[in-house]
Parts: sequence; C-alpha cells; structure tokens
Amino acid sequence: MKLWSMPSSGNSYKVRLLLGLLGRDCNIIDVEYLTEALDRAKASGRLPFGKAPVLELDDGRLLPESNAILCWLGEGSTFVPSDPFTRAKMLSWMFWEQNQHEGTVAVRAALLNYPHRRAQATPERMAALLDQGHAHLAIMESRLSAHDWLVGDAVSLADICLYGYTHTAGSRGGFDMARFPAINLWLGRVAALPGYRGIGK
Amino acid sequence: MKLWSMPSSGNSYKVRLLLGLLGRDCNIIDVEYLTEALDRAKASGRLPFGKAPVLELDDGRLLPESNAILCWLGEGSTFVPSDPFTRAKMLSWMFWEQNQHEGTVAVRAALLNYPHRRAQATPERMAALLDQGHAHLAIMESRLSAHDWLVGDAVSLADICLYGYTHTAGSRGGFDMARFPAINLWLGRVAALPGYRGIGK
Repeated sequence: MKLWSMPSSGNSYKVRLLLGLLGRDCNIIDVEYLTEALDRAKASGRLPFGKAPVLELDDGRLLPESNAILCWLGEGSTFVPSDPFTRAKMLSWMFWEQNQHEGTVAVRAALLNYPHRRAQATPERMAALLDQGHAHLAIMESRLSAHDWLVGDAVSLADICLYGYTHTAGSRGGFDMARFPAINLWLGRVAALPGYRGIGK
Repeated sequence: MKLWSMPSSGNSYKVRLLLGLLGRDCNIIDVEYLTEALDRAKASGRLPFGKAPVLELDDGRLLPESNAILCWLGEGSTFVPSDPFTRAKMLSWMFWEQNQHEGTVAVRAALLNYPHRRAQATPERMAALLDQGHAHLAIMESRLSAHDWLVGDAVSLADICLYGYTHTAGSRGGFDMARFPAINLWLGRVAALPGYRGIGK
C-alpha cells in the first residue's frame, strides 16, 4: 500500500495520522507543491483528480480524496461508529469539513504559507476568511463545549478529519484560538491518542 | 420525516431527487435564501451548520449536509454499491463534489442567479470560475466517456450527487456544455430513471 502524500497539506496529514493510530504500515511518497515529484505523479496517472492524497492499493487500484481514504482505512475499526445514525453524523462533519471548514481555515493558511499563492491574499479576502473561519471554528466549539468528541462518545473519523487543519489554524492560518478553549482541550485529546503522529512526522 | 430544503439549491435538490427515486414520502419544508422561513428555521435550531438541507427524523434527530443525507437515505438500497472498494470510490466522487466541483460549478451559478451575491461576481472571478469549472467537468467527461456511471456499472449516490449542480451548469452557470457530450448522455440516463423528479418539482 502506497500513499501519495503532500507533506505540507492537512488533507494528506489526516491520512498519515489515521495510519499511525491504526498501526498500519504504508509506503509514503512525498509529492510537495511545485516539485517535480508532483508533476511526475500527475503524469503517471496516479492522481485521478489531479491532487494528493491518493491511496494506491497493492493491486494498483487508486483511491483519491482524503476523507474517502479515511472511510476506507477506518472501516471495521473503532474509528467508525457502529450505530448507523452516529455514522451518518460522522459523515456530516466530514462533508462539512470539505465544503465549509477547509474553504476558510485551510485556504487562509495556504494563502499565508505557499509563496505561489500570496498574490491572492488581498487584505479584503484575508479579513473575510478570518471572519468566516472563526464562525466555522465556533460551530466546532459549540459541540465540543458539551462533548469530548464530535459525534457520539468516542473518537471517530470526524475528529481525525477535522484535526488535520484545525490543529494548525492558529500557527499557520492566523486564527485566534484563544477564543476556543473547548477546541484546544479536544486538540490535546487527539494528540494523546496511542499511535498519534504530528504533521512533521 | 421532514426535509428542510432550499428550492433553488442543487444541494437540497439532490436529496429530493433521491427521495423520488426511492419512492420515499417526506414532508418538504421550503427555506429559500433571504426569506423569513429560513430565518425561523435557523432560530429554531433546526439547521445545525446554519444551512439547508437538513433531514429531521420523526424523533427530532437532525442530520445536516446533503451528501451525508444521501448516504443515510440510500443505505441498503441499490444506490450504494455492495463492493467495499466501489463504495469507497463513490465517496471519493462525493467528497470531490463538495470540495472541488461545488466550489466552481455551483458557486458560479450562485453568483449569476442570486441578486445578493452579484457584487462578488467580478469579471476576474467569473473568468477563473469558468476555467476551473470546465476543468472539473472535464474530469467527469473523462470517466463518462468510457462508462455509463461514475462508479462501477450501475447508478449510485455519486451520480445523484453530481447530477445536482451539473444538470444546470449550462443554464445557470454559463458553462459550455457542448464540450461534454458524455456528460450530456449521462444527464439523460439520470433523467430517465424511474421516480425521477426535476429541480422544480
């Protein structure tokens, strides 16, 4: 099993994090932005949607999209709730992450940290992303103020998925994380899970 | 069962479409943009992420996010493949829809059709959305040029999900659909399914 993985990307990191938590071995192939390795991976047809991460099975089948990879790897583990409605709510958070949270929390970090995107970081756009991202983080804060985890009463793929970009929302995205004490406690709970690995590992 | 549904939104429409295909009854409650009905639904706490669609079960439990609702309603039906890897690839398309396709194809249509968003429709942004949307549609075209459906050999939630905004990409979004003959044939296959309902129904 191979993971075509972008070292700087929260989407790729969430998959590496789940692999660590599951204790699964995987050959990690780095394909960073603006590198020949990424160009080669695209040219070889390994990235069906043109982006990382992509999981390549031993028989060559390819699975793109970070959250679909989490579902595939997590199936049958304790990270997927057995109750059908709790599982459906887990997917709600995961689709929300890709449609809402990623579009503000991750995009603002990308505009600040990727040199080739800085031209798009106009003051108006950065201010709007800050407000919208704080509103998205407030939705997580509301849930986590009353519960340890995003769905049910145990860690699930929803937590792994949202951890990806949330844990660097302050350091990379410039969000004011002091406003979100429940999120900060939850970040600590994820980082204390057996098998946890940081984004640089 | 109630669906809090935005009549003009492809995200809400996909759920109404699946309900029709499944022959399921559901009380549809219209909550259009900039209406008191939407404000009331938000104030009542029925929209956990602040947006429609939301499925409300008879016992009051709430499920937000269109694609999570599709998964919940479709579970056990022919619209969810039984093969685990085909199911994972179905989810890949559904996450891609929310993260990539919706951000260009649906957003361009929203900027053209919702009066309160027209100020954001700068020429530069509309041109960029056109190019990016055409690139996303080309990914669908590539798959559909060689297959009848997006995953496996039968219609699945991936097709229902992508149909939502793709079938109005030309009329609402201004995309050049003549470039995508395989998509047009696929749109016809979806519209011919028993129980199909249009976006205005």
